[in-house]
Amino acid sequence: MSRLLVALGGNAMTAPDGSAAPADQIAAVNRAAAPIAELIATGHEVLVTHGNGPQVGNLLVKNELAAAVVPPVGLDWCGAQTQGTIGFILINAVERALAARGLVRPVAAVVTRTVVDAADPGFTHPTKPIGRYLPAAEAKAMIDHGQVWEDRGERGWRRVVASPEPLEVLDAPVVGLLAAAGVVVVAGGGGGIPVVRDPDGGLRGVEAVIDKDLAAAILARSVGADVLVIATDVPAAMLDWGTPAARPLGVVGVAELRRYAAAGHFGSGAMGPKVEAACRFVEHGGRRAVITDLDRISAASRGEAGTVVLPDEPPQTPEPGQTAVREEG
Amino acid sequence: MSRLLVALGGNAMTAPDGSAAPADQIAAVNRAAAPIAELIATGHEVLVTHGNGPQVGNLLVKNELAAAVVPPVGLDWCGAQTQGTIGFILINAVERALAARGLVRPVAAVVTRTVVDAADPGFTHPTKPIGRYLPAAEAKAMIDHGQVWEDRGERGWRRVVASPEPLEVLDAPVVGLLAAAGVVVVAGGGGGIPVVRDPDGGLRGVEAVIDKDLAAAILARSVGADVLVIATDVPAAMLDWGTPAARPLGVVGVAELRRYAAAGHFGSGAMGPKVEAACRFVEHGGRRAVITDLDRISAASRGEAGTVVLPDEPPQTPEPGQTAVREEG
Repeated sequence: MSRLLVALGGNAMTAPDGSAAPADQIAAVNRAAAPIAELIATGHEVLVTHGNGPQVGNLLVKNELAAAVVPPVGLDWCGAQTQGTIGFILINAVERALAARGLVRPVAAVVTRTVVDAADPGFTHPTKPIGRYLPAAEAKAMIDHGQVWEDRGERGWRRVVASPEPLEVLDAPVVGLLAAAGVVVVAGGGGGIPVVRDPDGGLRGVEAVIDKDLAAAILARSVGADVLVIATDVPAAMLDWGTPAARPLGVVGVAELRRYAAAGHFGSGAMGPKVEAACRFVEHGGRRAVITDLDRISAASRGEAGTVVLPDEPPQTPEPGQTAVREEG
Repeated sequence: MSRLLVALGGNAMTAPDGSAAPADQIAAVNRAAAPIAELIATGHEVLVTHGNGPQVGNLLVKNELAAAVVPPVGLDWCGAQTQGTIGFILINAVERALAARGLVRPVAAVVTRTVVDAADPGFTHPTKPIGRYLPAAEAKAMIDHGQVWEDRGERGWRRVVASPEPLEVLDAPVVGLLAAAGVVVVAGGGGGIPVVRDPDGGLRGVEAVIDKDLAAAILARSVGADVLVIATDVPAAMLDWGTPAARPLGVVGVAELRRYAAAGHFGSGAMGPKVEAACRFVEHGGRRAVITDLDRISAASRGEAGTVVLPDEPPQTPEPGQTAVREEG
């Protein structure tokens, strides 16, 4: 039996048109829960983490529209809010999907904090744009609440925030404790609630967004996961992405994958952090990282689909499934 | 060593003026964490639950003001959101208070669901008023989103919702598992996220608020707590409350307490559910329930302060502290 951490992308929690209305989120996670239940049914210990971009987007709009009446909450609180709501609907969905297979497992969602460095350059020079564009006057109102907004020309103003490196997923020991007891744990949502350590050792939430895949690589390592499954909306990472020569990447050693990344094969979009997260996990002792879509996560966890990232040094005792890995788009 | 569930009232998470702005909530929970750390320092296993009224109030305002742009979320989601945010700041605060005493304990917050009956009369005839008063036109906009609002005359319209009986705290086994491993667990916030069971056995969030003290009585029982501590803003429940004869109630047997409640001693306000919760916990096997303010919870947990509710049948092996319980306002 192996332990898997499945990282669900935003598309696993929104409607195909991107809507993050509650009913749409619930329908989406019910779909996402089926392959998770399949992994559990085939004997894996499964942990789940998830993104929260569209959900935080909605919370930011509420912050803005209510700012004159209710004090806006920071991105740390937005993250905590989405850990509550997405955790809630995910545990319901996984229980339902397990029941459909006649299985009963304890399922739980844990509030999770991720430590970042207060000296991360993102805090002095925030560059990550989030939320919607606003006219100058409305942006000004949010700047008065301490936020940083930039004039983006014709489209209006947009908020920029820090996206610091995740350093430690603080609640990983509790997650690991639950996993060892057979609980299917949802944790690290949105990359974890960003916190810094004050000089007195206490924790303080900060205005930042954390890449959920990079945080997932840390969480997976911290809880001793064998496999990190990064579920996204494409079957595999593509070499020569965005060109006529684009082709899916199957089984690959981590050093080779790093060379592809350095050569710009994955473009500057969303795939970059996923590839980086996969590399880090495998470089730090993970047995395998997988990048694929939800429908293929079960096959990919066996090394039979998706982009499968392996350590460069083969393990001393090869595992049975390893020779079966093959490329599949 | 005994296991305590401490139920924090809304005043433990807001400023003295009632503000639930983030900074005010953080300052308040830092104050509330000190007596919790004291309980842990004196050898107790401590679990924490909390209310969320003012926090949900803020979320409802955001729902209303953003309704034209972002779909309002239900009370189940509001509850989940506050479990995230309050759980986050509470675990930070408890860790900080423990560190101030040179103690390190794992601390965690768990998303918690509470089952209610879909046939609870509250759903057909909602009576619990929540949130702010609105003019008719604005109330109408929320009614269009499926909410129930009542014309309250001069002050305007106000939303009414179901406040169904909590039947089961679903995530109690996970909470108990963590408690047994020495984790200080925050759970059951806001009485738990209200859910009903669909005919297929699946869970569905519902529009309701659950009394957090009644849910705490169930959670405490489910996790085998010895003592339920209901922390509020008065040192004790008062007999003849609201009259010149008002006087604090100290040690009392549960049958006697039920007689006082039936005779109307506690008025119709906030104390009623606390007394009911204390009675239920003790009637279902709890060793002791306590109603007091935060400053007295440590003394009250020893039976030396507050209103201390005991079973009518003395335990077969009296515990050392029991003869020491005495009345103290």
